[in-house]
Amino acid sequence: MGVVVPLEEKSTGIERLNGLVAEAMAGVNKTILARTGSDVAMIPEVANHLISSGGKRLRPMLTLATAGLCGYTGEGHIKLAASVEFMHTATLLHDDVVDESDMRRGKLAARMLWGNEASVLVGDFLLGQAFKMMVEVGSLQCLDVLSSAAAVIAEGEVMQLSAAKDTQTSEDAYLEVIRAKTAALFAAACEVGPILAGRAKADVEACRGYGANLGIAFQLIDDALDYGGSAAKLGKNVGDDFREGKITLPVVLSFRRGTEAERDFWRRTLERGEIADGDLETALATMKKHRALEDTVERARHYGAMARDALELFPASQWKRALFDVVDFCVSRAH
Amino acid sequence: MGVVVPLEEKSTGIERLNGLVAEAMAGVNKTILARTGSDVAMIPEVANHLISSGGKRLRPMLTLATAGLCGYTGEGHIKLAASVEFMHTATLLHDDVVDESDMRRGKLAARMLWGNEASVLVGDFLLGQAFKMMVEVGSLQCLDVLSSAAAVIAEGEVMQLSAAKDTQTSEDAYLEVIRAKTAALFAAACEVGPILAGRAKADVEACRGYGANLGIAFQLIDDALDYGGSAAKLGKNVGDDFREGKITLPVVLSFRRGTEAERDFWRRTLERGEIADGDLETALATMKKHRALEDTVERARHYGAMARDALELFPASQWKRALFDVVDFCVSRAH
Repeated sequence: MGVVVPLEEKSTGIERLNGLVAEAMAGVNKTILARTGSDVAMIPEVANHLISSGGKRLRPMLTLATAGLCGYTGEGHIKLAASVEFMHTATLLHDDVVDESDMRRGKLAARMLWGNEASVLVGDFLLGQAFKMMVEVGSLQCLDVLSSAAAVIAEGEVMQLSAAKDTQTSEDAYLEVIRAKTAALFAAACEVGPILAGRAKADVEACRGYGANLGIAFQLIDDALDYGGSAAKLGKNVGDDFREGKITLPVVLSFRRGTEAERDFWRRTLERGEIADGDLETALATMKKHRALEDTVERARHYGAMARDALELFPASQWKRALFDVVDFCVSRAH
Repeated sequence: MGVVVPLEEKSTGIERLNGLVAEAMAGVNKTILARTGSDVAMIPEVANHLISSGGKRLRPMLTLATAGLCGYTGEGHIKLAASVEFMHTATLLHDDVVDESDMRRGKLAARMLWGNEASVLVGDFLLGQAFKMMVEVGSLQCLDVLSSAAAVIAEGEVMQLSAAKDTQTSEDAYLEVIRAKTAALFAAACEVGPILAGRAKADVEACRGYGANLGIAFQLIDDALDYGGSAAKLGKNVGDDFREGKITLPVVLSFRRGTEAERDFWRRTLERGEIADGDLETALATMKKHRALEDTVERARHYGAMARDALELFPASQWKRALFDVVDFCVSRAH
């Protein structure tokens, strides 16, 4: 059931990026560890459960890489990268409560181990620490970018909640949701690099555009993988979105392209939540019939291409190549 | 069952304060309304449900009043006051989820109307907006104070979660919890006023001390009222803390002063949550026997006195008198 994406060039993975940011990333990890410390034992326990459970730390790496691309030589990018990861982790903790998820990154969700209460509150703590670190860096422009992202992310999550279970959701409406809930943090993570480096508006905009489009591509591939990837790879189960009644692009496309009987199927399973044995298989077969997963990946490739072009005004460099690798890596995750 | 506090002087209420801040407060209310606006309809709905449900807006008033006390003539205090109220509202929304509360300020809790999901996410949105407003004011020192408070508040909530249901909690440990979860925001609300006004460290410290001690007094009276006030006055039910197994100062004192049989009672009801008909009445009678509510109020009066003395280094003014009124008002709420 895997979705195979033909790559234009041999996939490089993100080894180049990993190498370039290795030293700074060690600083980020040290900061993350120090800032989840608390006399209240539950805080490091919950935070480390999630932080240590093998996320790729893609977002903080993007902050480091865009700072590198722009020739930044200071230390502020370390704390901002850690802030970005804390904001992301806080969102995951709160999402698990909102979605009532059991699993996260292949481990039991924190809320299953420590309860919803701890997930909500430790999320709040991490958000508070994130803002403290940003304040320490002292750039009001970066603070503006990241605090605006925090508000937009929450707004996107509420938007998704309001639109949830509406099979008539349009592709544009869905894009608006993921621009807010996923792409906004990618965009902010990439925007603070050039700001720290004191670059001109066009460069700041370019990095922001790269991040925003990369974020959309990343989310669309996630959506496709939820119906087509292996659970082990994703750290969650195939069909999670289906069981939770989430309307994602594969569903939006299948519904629009479907027969009236198929639309009834989506309404019953996703809107009314009446899911019986075999329904996931029917969903997958219907998506296959309408090429919904392939076309979701195609859409992701489009945003990936936009991300690349956003960066094209920068001269060639190892940093630029590494950031291009990230686009390929994200889109080729669907393998 | 009301706890009667003999006042040193006739209670004035907070009319003086209301009068002094009336104009600025209109600005705060306008800002609050504008900043809860969103195309996502659920956000203003949930936010306004709570914000419009008649909280006293004590915290933002403190920001305005300490700014006034320190002769601030700018406009930044309006946005900071609104930020403080948003931080408070976000905490309430998340608390209701954590505590599984049904009621808040005499109305159904937001989570009962829109679900836990909306309470978590709209809380996150308000927190994001709070930080955006702080950034707009542009004082890194104020940002530091308020973001530190955000982290400390969440830490205090987790601390309370960890200590929950432990009847052996000491008075000092309990104080540590409420210093973090309640007093930290009062302190921050009062500290940003003198910072905006560019006052010297001693004045900043004085206002912070006033707020911190006032916050402790406020919380202790709240604890006493939960066992002794009228539900209508508080907007919640007598015995909520008891039913939720919360260890507050009246319980800490009753447990320590109690017989072994009484301690067994507290262990059964609060630690094990085995509550039968008549247990609330037994709890109240046991508290009465040990003067636990009166002494909780006495403790509150102590912190109220510290709050007053913190401000004594300021020369006499209408603002100072208004801030003293707040202390009397908070402590005499137990009437």
